[in-house]
This record gives sequence, C-alpha cells and structure tokens, in this order.
Amino acid sequence: MAQSYVQTAAAPALETLSRHRCFGGWQGYYRHQSREIGLPMRFGVYLPPQAETERVPVLTYLAGLTCNEETFAIKAGAQRLASELGIALVTPDTSPRGTDFPGQADNWDFGIGAGFYVDATEQPWAKHWRMYSYINHELPEVIANGFSVDPERQSIFGHSMGGHGALVSALRNPKRYRSVSAFAPICAPTQCPWGNKAFSGYLGSDKASWRAYDATELVQNQPFHSEILIDQGLDDEFLTEQLHPNLFEKAAVKVGQPVELRLHPGYSHNYYFIQTFMADHLKRHAAALHR
Amino acid sequence: MAQSYVQTAAAPALETLSRHRCFGGWQGYYRHQSREIGLPMRFGVYLPPQAETERVPVLTYLAGLTCNEETFAIKAGAQRLASELGIALVTPDTSPRGTDFPGQADNWDFGIGAGFYVDATEQPWAKHWRMYSYINHELPEVIANGFSVDPERQSIFGHSMGGHGALVSALRNPKRYRSVSAFAPICAPTQCPWGNKAFSGYLGSDKASWRAYDATELVQNQPFHSEILIDQGLDDEFLTEQLHPNLFEKAAVKVGQPVELRLHPGYSHNYYFIQTFMADHLKRHAAALHR
Repeated sequence: MAQSYVQTAAAPALETLSRHRCFGGWQGYYRHQSREIGLPMRFGVYLPPQAETERVPVLTYLAGLTCNEETFAIKAGAQRLASELGIALVTPDTSPRGTDFPGQADNWDFGIGAGFYVDATEQPWAKHWRMYSYINHELPEVIANGFSVDPERQSIFGHSMGGHGALVSALRNPKRYRSVSAFAPICAPTQCPWGNKAFSGYLGSDKASWRAYDATELVQNQPFHSEILIDQGLDDEFLTEQLHPNLFEKAAVKVGQPVELRLHPGYSHNYYFIQTFMADHLKRHAAALHR
Repeated sequence: MAQSYVQTAAAPALETLSRHRCFGGWQGYYRHQSREIGLPMRFGVYLPPQAETERVPVLTYLAGLTCNEETFAIKAGAQRLASELGIALVTPDTSPRGTDFPGQADNWDFGIGAGFYVDATEQPWAKHWRMYSYINHELPEVIANGFSVDPERQSIFGHSMGGHGALVSALRNPKRYRSVSAFAPICAPTQCPWGNKAFSGYLGSDKASWRAYDATELVQNQPFHSEILIDQGLDDEFLTEQLHPNLFEKAAVKVGQPVELRLHPGYSHNYYFIQTFMADHLKRHAAALHR
C-alpha cells in the first residue's frame, strides 16, 4: 500500500533511490534513463499525505548553479506547507551528469550543475544538454506516470538560474503552467555575464537564438496569463551584475504583464533568503493549483 | 545599528564568520578561542527579530555524529518558528577540530565530529575533548556576553548523540535549563555500541565514571523538574541497537520523572524526521522560556 501510489507499472524504468517520511508524506529520490538527455537523470519528489488517496497537483522547482535534486528538499523548508496544502514538489537536477566532455567541470557556472535549462545546439553539449525539453516535456510525463499526481495541474518556480528556467518555461508554455514565481531569478540572461557565457557555449554566437531563453525578451511577445511573483534580496551579491529584475519588470509593465517584484533589504542570494519567503510562493501556487 | 546587538565589547575575541538575513532575524556563524577546548571553536546563532529590542531566551541544539554547527541551521527548518516565538537558537559544533591526534578521523563515531558531549579523561583526548564543560559552562557565557540574550532563560535539545548530550546536560544542570527535549537520543550510552566505544576511548575502562554521562543512569538519581519530550521514528535504523528510549522511559517512570515518548511509524533518523516534529519542540521550549 505504501508503495502503490509511488510507482506504477506504467513507469517500469523509474528507480527509487531513497524515500523518507516527512510531514506525513514522503520525500523521495529517483533515477530514470532520460530520453531527452540520453543519460540517467535523478530527481526528487515530495508527495504530501493527500497523495495516498487522490491525485495531487505538481509544483516543480528549478534550482540554481551548482545545485542538484536534493538542494531544495534539504534547505528550503517547503515540505511542511506542501503537506498542508496538498501539493507535490518536484525537484530536477540542474544538468546532465556522467558525460566526459572536455572542461565540463572546470567552471561552476557552465557545464555540470549549470545546464541553464536550455536545449544546447553547440557541440559537444547538444547531445546531452537538453534541459529545456527535459523539464518541460519529458519529466512531466515521467512524474505523471510514476506518481499519484494530476498532470493537468502544474506550476513552476525556481531560484537564480532556476528562476530564469521557471520564467522561460512558463512564458513559453502558458497552457502547461497555472502559475510561475521566482527567487532572485536571472531575468535577462542575454544581458549579463552568466547568461552570455552559458548561451555562447550552449547556443553559439548567433544571438537571435538566445532570445527564446530570455524572460525579458519573451515576456514582450507572449505575456503570461497571471501575475508573476518575484522576490529579490537587496544584499544579493549577484543583483547588480547578473540578475536585472528591473529589466524584466520594465518589459512586463510595457505589455501589461502583471508582476509583483518584492525587494527585501538585508537578504542575500541563499536559502536563508529563500526559506523566509517560501510560504508566500507556496500559497500562491496552491491557490492556482486548487482552483 | 544592525551590528550593535550582535557583538559587544565584552566579547572582543568573538569573530563573525558570516551573517545571513533569515525570517526577519539573522543566522550567523562565529568563531572564538575556547578556554575549555584550548582551540578555536565555531558555533551558529539564530537571533530572532525581537533581539533588536530586547534580550531573548536561548535554546541550544546539540547535533549528532558527523554534524557541525551548520547542520541544524540548514536542515531543521527551525528559524521560522524561532522568529515567531522570539527565541535565539545556538548550535555548537560536535567536537574540537584542528588537533592531530592519531586516528582522530578514522571513525565517524569517534574523534572528530563525535565528541559525545563529555569531558575526556583519557589521553590524548583529555587535553581538548572537553565538550561537556564547553557546552554547559563556557559557551553560555560567550553567548551571554556576545549577543542580545537573557542568560537566565535557557533550554536545550538535540538529536541522536546530541539528544544524549541534551538529556545529560539538563539532568546534571536542572537549574540552568528550563526545559529539555530530544529527537532520537542515545538514551543509555553505557548500554550500546556507540556509547561503549566513545566512553571507553574518552573516559577509560572504569565504567563507574561513565554513569555521569548516561541519561538513563542520571534520571534515577536526579530527575528533571519538568516533562521531557522525546520523539523517536520507528523506522530509525539505529533504534534497536543504539538508542534504547524504552530504557530511559522505564527508568524515568520508576522515579516519577514525567516523560512523553512519542513513537512515529515510518520515520527514520534524519532531518526529514526532525523537521516534521520541530514545531512541537520549539513551542514547548518557548512556553518554558517565556514563562
């Protein structure tokens, strides 16, 4: 019984790495052979107690540079409210792992742990670095087939590189996601060093191709159907050079896209910041997911 | 202003390693030259927002084997309620570090990261492994001098080896601590492999000396002045061989010591378990600390 709602015959290739009782539900870690990535990928799922008797909605969290599928589950303090609100939390890894590309681990902001949620077109990355399609197409299927969730009710959020990923995913797939929010997202990757480095490496020198992965560009052409919540610490060491929430806000305002950008004095770029405002994000997503 | 309540002239040797805004307060990490240990020691302090205008009570958390001063602050999800309840959280390290004793890092359950909260009498450990006196005498002074806290209002809790440390500290110092609780504590270290190994190494072969650090022994002679809450997961991989909460409960009942031992099916020995029941512990300690 305890296993029955976790894995079904429809997902035979889903390997359970570990499962931990948490707030009446289960925090689990899983591995599967990814079609998009062409390698085994790991992810985490928190299933709230409600998943024992019904299909619960899914909130996917995309993590930032250097993180993996465990970071959010360990540091964000989100399971408590997810349990109360009856929401599954899905936490993918931040890049493929297990390749042997030259230089793949030389930089903490490019390669391993730094997939930037794009489908790479440059070699050698193009073969495996297909995080955009993995997150938005393959993983939702895997989750829908393997767990007691309702694939019709999905939302997405993330932090930093993952905030960028969440905004881009939602803006490009407004029908898939009921709501989107972000903590200290990279809002204009085509205009910051992290984004320039990653997009040059993964997408090449034709900057026209970069726009499909830049939230500030995307929002001008395809606004999202509901308000976007962004929390940003004002003592964030990356704010000025890398994040540019004001560029996103300005572009959004111009096209009538509702954005709530909240600026928090004293807060930095870490999970002490994220956990402080976690409840506001979870409650907003829950409102959209339970509508 | 922001610094003023964190460090005073009375604690000139307290070095701030980092400070992070969290739930309106500050999670900080500090280092000082310890008199008891004879080496630099690190600890964490979460100061709730109330500490800006008043001296707040102190709840010390002792961590388990292999952990350090960051473990609880990162994984336990306690700052949210500590902020609400107006309690400072103090998280010491679990052993001295920086020695070069033979074999000090060969075992995860002895030596570095495994101080067991005793004052060692055996060589070479006796020189630096004085965690009992550090936790119960020196550190409270350092905290009282360095932070906006009220040293007359202190409580203590912990996990596993740290649950043992918390129970022993409270039973031996009932006037110092207003309340004590534990997650999956090592309740009878003189009767389990972890305790036998640690006490043999730190205290020697005379088992009479071990009793001063065994909660099940101590409670029979010097009960605590209020109920002791213990949470224990029933899928805890260490329950049967190492923890023995039933021995403690039996000894306590015999002398009329109130204990609430709560057994939780499905829960293990990790921080997914700890965070699930954190709120109950914090609320009980707050009730004692704000009385």
